[in-house]
Amino acid sequence: MERIKPHTLSGFMELLPRRQAVMDRITDTIREVYSLYGFTALDTPVIEASDVLLAKGGGETEKQIYRFTKGDIDLALRFDLTVPLAKYVAMHYADLSFPFRRYQIGKVYRGERAQRGRFREFYQADIDVIGDGELDIMNEAEVPSIIYQVFTRLGLTRFVIRVNNRKLLTGFYDMLGLSDKSAGIMRTVDKLEKIGKDKVLAILTEDLGISGSDAGRILDFMSIKGSNESVLNALEEYRGKNGTFDKGLDELRAVAGYLGAFGVPEANFALDLTIARGLDYYTGTVYETVMTDHPEVGSVCSGGRYDDLAGYYTDKKLPGVGISIGLTRLFFILDDVGLLSEDVSSAPCDVLILPQTDDRSGAAELATVLRDAGIRTQIYSERKKFKAKMTYANRLGAPFIAILGEDELSQNKVSLKNMGTGEQALLSAGEAVDRVKASLEGRNVRPIKE
Amino acid sequence: MERIKPHTLSGFMELLPRRQAVMDRITDTIREVYSLYGFTALDTPVIEASDVLLAKGGGETEKQIYRFTKGDIDLALRFDLTVPLAKYVAMHYADLSFPFRRYQIGKVYRGERAQRGRFREFYQADIDVIGDGELDIMNEAEVPSIIYQVFTRLGLTRFVIRVNNRKLLTGFYDMLGLSDKSAGIMRTVDKLEKIGKDKVLAILTEDLGISGSDAGRILDFMSIKGSNESVLNALEEYRGKNGTFDKGLDELRAVAGYLGAFGVPEANFALDLTIARGLDYYTGTVYETVMTDHPEVGSVCSGGRYDDLAGYYTDKKLPGVGISIGLTRLFFILDDVGLLSEDVSSAPCDVLILPQTDDRSGAAELATVLRDAGIRTQIYSERKKFKAKMTYANRLGAPFIAILGEDELSQNKVSLKNMGTGEQALLSAGEAVDRVKASLEGRNVRPIKE
Repeated sequence: MERIKPHTLSGFMELLPRRQAVMDRITDTIREVYSLYGFTALDTPVIEASDVLLAKGGGETEKQIYRFTKGDIDLALRFDLTVPLAKYVAMHYADLSFPFRRYQIGKVYRGERAQRGRFREFYQADIDVIGDGELDIMNEAEVPSIIYQVFTRLGLTRFVIRVNNRKLLTGFYDMLGLSDKSAGIMRTVDKLEKIGKDKVLAILTEDLGISGSDAGRILDFMSIKGSNESVLNALEEYRGKNGTFDKGLDELRAVAGYLGAFGVPEANFALDLTIARGLDYYTGTVYETVMTDHPEVGSVCSGGRYDDLAGYYTDKKLPGVGISIGLTRLFFILDDVGLLSEDVSSAPCDVLILPQTDDRSGAAELATVLRDAGIRTQIYSERKKFKAKMTYANRLGAPFIAILGEDELSQNKVSLKNMGTGEQALLSAGEAVDRVKASLEGRNVRPIKE
Repeated sequence: MERIKPHTLSGFMELLPRRQAVMDRITDTIREVYSLYGFTALDTPVIEASDVLLAKGGGETEKQIYRFTKGDIDLALRFDLTVPLAKYVAMHYADLSFPFRRYQIGKVYRGERAQRGRFREFYQADIDVIGDGELDIMNEAEVPSIIYQVFTRLGLTRFVIRVNNRKLLTGFYDMLGLSDKSAGIMRTVDKLEKIGKDKVLAILTEDLGISGSDAGRILDFMSIKGSNESVLNALEEYRGKNGTFDKGLDELRAVAGYLGAFGVPEANFALDLTIARGLDYYTGTVYETVMTDHPEVGSVCSGGRYDDLAGYYTDKKLPGVGISIGLTRLFFILDDVGLLSEDVSSAPCDVLILPQTDDRSGAAELATVLRDAGIRTQIYSERKKFKAKMTYANRLGAPFIAILGEDELSQNKVSLKNMGTGEQALLSAGEAVDRVKASLEGRNVRPIKE
């Protein structure tokens, strides 16, 4: 037979079983938390009509998109989960109840240049709350509190959700009479951390033609830092000069207050005036999430408030607030910086049964008892030497093995060995269930990092 | 703004929230059962290189495949989960432990003509056990026992897993000297239920040129029915004439025995000599699963034993046994024949908090307490009249609402209303947790059909 060399495309993540188990644990944690917050799961197609997917039009997106025809239909693979959400809400508007809270975890596709840590197929894990005409400010605090909960349950502690409000920026630039230059200013200020104050100043004055005194005012504004209360107090100094600014300040104060009420400690969120988020469509609170000890990886979870989810599909005004975890990239980063615990139980079973007799009906029956009790059980069914069986058990990382030979079967018992402690005991099936369950308590809900 | 009409492509399933919740429950049940049996989860890319995906070559597949180029790379969307598994095992052979037991639930793509109940994007939920050179017969019983468990947990009872062994058929046709015609015979006999005995007889004699007496022998053989023990006894009459047949009979007897040991009742499996499965590569036990009251929908879950998983990628001999649930189609069928319970809890939250004050910090705090206790909680954050809030609660199907007004807040309590019974009580947050948990006990683990 002619053979083809099996390979996986570059930019496509494919994990070995143990690492896949860790990835799955992250995904499960996200799903669990999103559900706890009362979000409904959605699943939309990976393939959409190109005219639907590209309704908004657009630059970079259009170049990266996977687009092709089948028959005479122009198709494309989704490049995010927001456009499909907009389509869904516009299409099913009459069948949905608003606020409509949905989460979706799914693969999206971008034909970017392949490079380390960049993926062409990757999971996004999105939550959005969509209002019908209006949406309360409280949602802008609840959404980042969900991210706090996800990260905390994953065992991560050293992260900060940076929060800003676009109305503050819009209002502030309006105060300076620089509204027409605000997009350029935001793009520049966004690089403050990366390129430093002097370079930002140079771009503002030389490239954007802003006066030295205005550039100074911008940098003064951006350098407002400190505790959330002190930032809010410093911002109060600017109050009364611009309606949009004042509204932004009220919103930021409300969001900071509700974040506390949702149980997010001050250590894990910071009001940060330098956050703007590139996308044009954010209009209120915006978020970024950084790993405190790894600022170099940038934001691992971003989002914000927008006023018009689906204007290119419907005349309904659909404001919303959402946030997206780039799940594949997050996994890659956590792994890369050593934040994935080696200790996570990644064995595919809790008990591996080793039958030592020709007839393995007893093993099948024992497996059924264990599985009925919720214990993940595998039978080693091959007729190999005991040593080979033990090698297999060790490679799998099975926490328990259950040996079933003539002796055990004649007494209607099983020799249960705890592979961690080496302890072995002759037990009834019921006793084995209790022993395993007691030992596993908590083991499979451990965070990915400890 | 110019508007595009939002639409979803034909042949692509996209569900409203309540139906999606039922679909998710089916998926979760499958995942849970597959895990209980000690299978490891895999996730492989949706896109693969075309030469890899089409290594086996092939007729129908090639016509249906979604294939396109990006840059100068020839790409294709996977059309099943078996070829990606073969690729994975061949590629990662050295890193895997055998028997390698994996499950994968994922979307696959086939550009079939769109028709009712046919999907171009659909989920498959596969399990396979792959051996290294050899694989014990016990696996051929365990795999269908997993399907029994899945269906049973879904609340389905009226289904039969039909089991046959390809060696019996191969050996039987060999006995008659009809080996060269066996493919045609199997294709014909496969239609027995659909077209009836007379038409099968006509095709066998007229189209395939088989003598009347041989055709009679074939139909006699195929009409062996009854209890599993009586089928096995009838087959014993043929023993001793053909080595392959005898081996098939031993295997079928072993599988029937182990199926019992794995707790599958006789009512849910039947030895059925008419099952052949189209694919050439099955070599031992084969399965189909039919809904007893709906034979018209055909098999909802099929698979079998094969000897050579990945011959087009590697010279390693990798026998295996697997089964696949066509999940999207199964959902469509269960819905279509009325087997999905209306009663399944599909609300996105267990408790909907209705804040009745301007400051909703109390609602945020209560939500945090409930969520920490594992209760799915949503805050109705919009400032609407009470009636509008109740309409929303009813549309959502929330089992509980928690009213939080000045009165409740001043006493540090909440008015918890059970929407099913109408009962309302003024409780502390802790009491509310207990009340909700007691009521939800079991509610969210109900089968999809009752």
